[in-house]
Amino acid sequence: MTDESSAGRVVILSGGVGGARFAAGMADWVPPEALTVVVNVGDDFEPFNLRVSPDIDTVCYTLAGLENPETGWGRRDETWHAMETIETLGGPTWFRLGDRDLGLHLERTRRLAQGMPLSQVTRAICQALGVRAQVLPATDDSLRTWVKVAEHGWLPFQEYFVRHQWRPRLMALAYRGATRARPAPGVMEALHEAEVILLAPSNPWLSLDPILAVPGIRSVLQQKRAVAVSPFIAGRAVKGPAAKIARELGYTATPLSLAEYYQDILSGLVIDQADAAQAPLITQRTGIPVYITDTWMQGPEGRRRVAYSAWTFARLLASSRGVEEPAA
Amino acid sequence: MTDESSAGRVVILSGGVGGARFAAGMADWVPPEALTVVVNVGDDFEPFNLRVSPDIDTVCYTLAGLENPETGWGRRDETWHAMETIETLGGPTWFRLGDRDLGLHLERTRRLAQGMPLSQVTRAICQALGVRAQVLPATDDSLRTWVKVAEHGWLPFQEYFVRHQWRPRLMALAYRGATRARPAPGVMEALHEAEVILLAPSNPWLSLDPILAVPGIRSVLQQKRAVAVSPFIAGRAVKGPAAKIARELGYTATPLSLAEYYQDILSGLVIDQADAAQAPLITQRTGIPVYITDTWMQGPEGRRRVAYSAWTFARLLASSRGVEEPAA
Repeated sequence: MTDESSAGRVVILSGGVGGARFAAGMADWVPPEALTVVVNVGDDFEPFNLRVSPDIDTVCYTLAGLENPETGWGRRDETWHAMETIETLGGPTWFRLGDRDLGLHLERTRRLAQGMPLSQVTRAICQALGVRAQVLPATDDSLRTWVKVAEHGWLPFQEYFVRHQWRPRLMALAYRGATRARPAPGVMEALHEAEVILLAPSNPWLSLDPILAVPGIRSVLQQKRAVAVSPFIAGRAVKGPAAKIARELGYTATPLSLAEYYQDILSGLVIDQADAAQAPLITQRTGIPVYITDTWMQGPEGRRRVAYSAWTFARLLASSRGVEEPAA
Repeated sequence: MTDESSAGRVVILSGGVGGARFAAGMADWVPPEALTVVVNVGDDFEPFNLRVSPDIDTVCYTLAGLENPETGWGRRDETWHAMETIETLGGPTWFRLGDRDLGLHLERTRRLAQGMPLSQVTRAICQALGVRAQVLPATDDSLRTWVKVAEHGWLPFQEYFVRHQWRPRLMALAYRGATRARPAPGVMEALHEAEVILLAPSNPWLSLDPILAVPGIRSVLQQKRAVAVSPFIAGRAVKGPAAKIARELGYTATPLSLAEYYQDILSGLVIDQADAAQAPLITQRTGIPVYITDTWMQGPEGRRRVAYSAWTFARLLASSRGVEEPAA
């Protein structure tokens, strides 16, 4: 079905924890020079005048094997002494910054202040941490997710997500800056060169849509098509608010809903075996072929397995699509 | 000689370690509500986009009993995990920021970014750390010490002091912003109300002069006069580059040189017993009375003793001066 030795470029569009684990699983199959992870920056923010890029950090830490396996974010073997001081001083502690993690935010902030774009800073961080895959922010420009929620109105993403722990009902989303944002250097090249493009099992509205909102990215996917891994299993999200948000925005937390939502960009959809019954309806309604497997990325084996399934499915679709639809 | 129960306001002009220890010694004699420490901000800088105020921090940590007794700066029981990350990432590590210490810089930076002036931020920090004496930055405005040194030309203070470890020969000093700086709220009031004003045994050029350069402060001292504690003992400085700088600027590292340098603002000078032989010459040349004692602030007892000597000497001079020179 696949020839691993001649693997073409794989591009993953990714948010935080789920996408990071998926990318780490893929790194076990695809040589690092052939793997690009395009990461959401809509969650980025500036606590304490520091630039924090939560999804980029989670992807980098996970690819480097430094991630905190309990939380999914932040670093393992972390200490919290800076936070203790901030608490003593009566400062805000709702966003937890560990000491080791802080070092990265400090150094990123320093380099950005010197005029280095985020993509270059990220490359330097990856090199230093031993991450050989290419990790790219979706854009070097300012793109921030804002959410309109019941009672509070419009909030910057982190206020909603961390401070209010995604409890308020979400009514609308905005990706501020998106229309003026340009894809970071390397993003369009990677997409154009990609043999397969994969949407990680990340939150569609909070992680994937802010990437797709950068002008140019969605149109490549509309041409080349991507394979998505459903973040929904039996009506629930493995982690985070995807299922809750789906309902609040008038969707269902199902692979079918996802297939319809991304119908214009998908060539295939990987769904969990718990949702197997939906497979015929998905293909019938959207024309999108479905791959049914255990999508639960439990441990290194789980993420390897899910990555392999999505990758081989996408390669198969790419080759058959090439046969069925010769270039005009 | 003195009546401790009716102590009037004591104002100390202070730099970092030496001034902080002197102030902590004074806090054992003077009730906290009667003690004001006006602190140099010429050393302040912004590593990693954080606002660091080294002398204020050393004074606050020392008054709170949190200081690192080995280094004199930073906090005791410190960890260095953020710095380890920065080192891994190839960032600058010449200015060592401990994790607990970082929390303070983060919170100060956050409050300053919200528009709170440094004096208010400092007050909040002192309250949170249990420091009851009044710690005031000399100014809330930007005032930065720059040094002109052999080979490198003009450098911001911390580059010279920490990065080059004050090795280059100092040729000139500038307190950038000083002419436009206003004394921080409370500084002029404290000086006007003071029963005694003391110059801590701090570096004249790097710690005291940047305070005296703020328009208004020196002229109060010219009227009211201060008692200085010599930072020089037998031609050397207890800590730091004061003796080296004295020579490089064409002075000698002696109490006599200090008395002449500050002749316009001193009512008295406390010198170490090792320099006792200079006492007659000092008074003969400058008219400034001298108090000879052991000025080595070894441990809590040492700083208590030196503070007591300076304080009681200053009160005696203030009262006798009041008798000799009735108000016009």
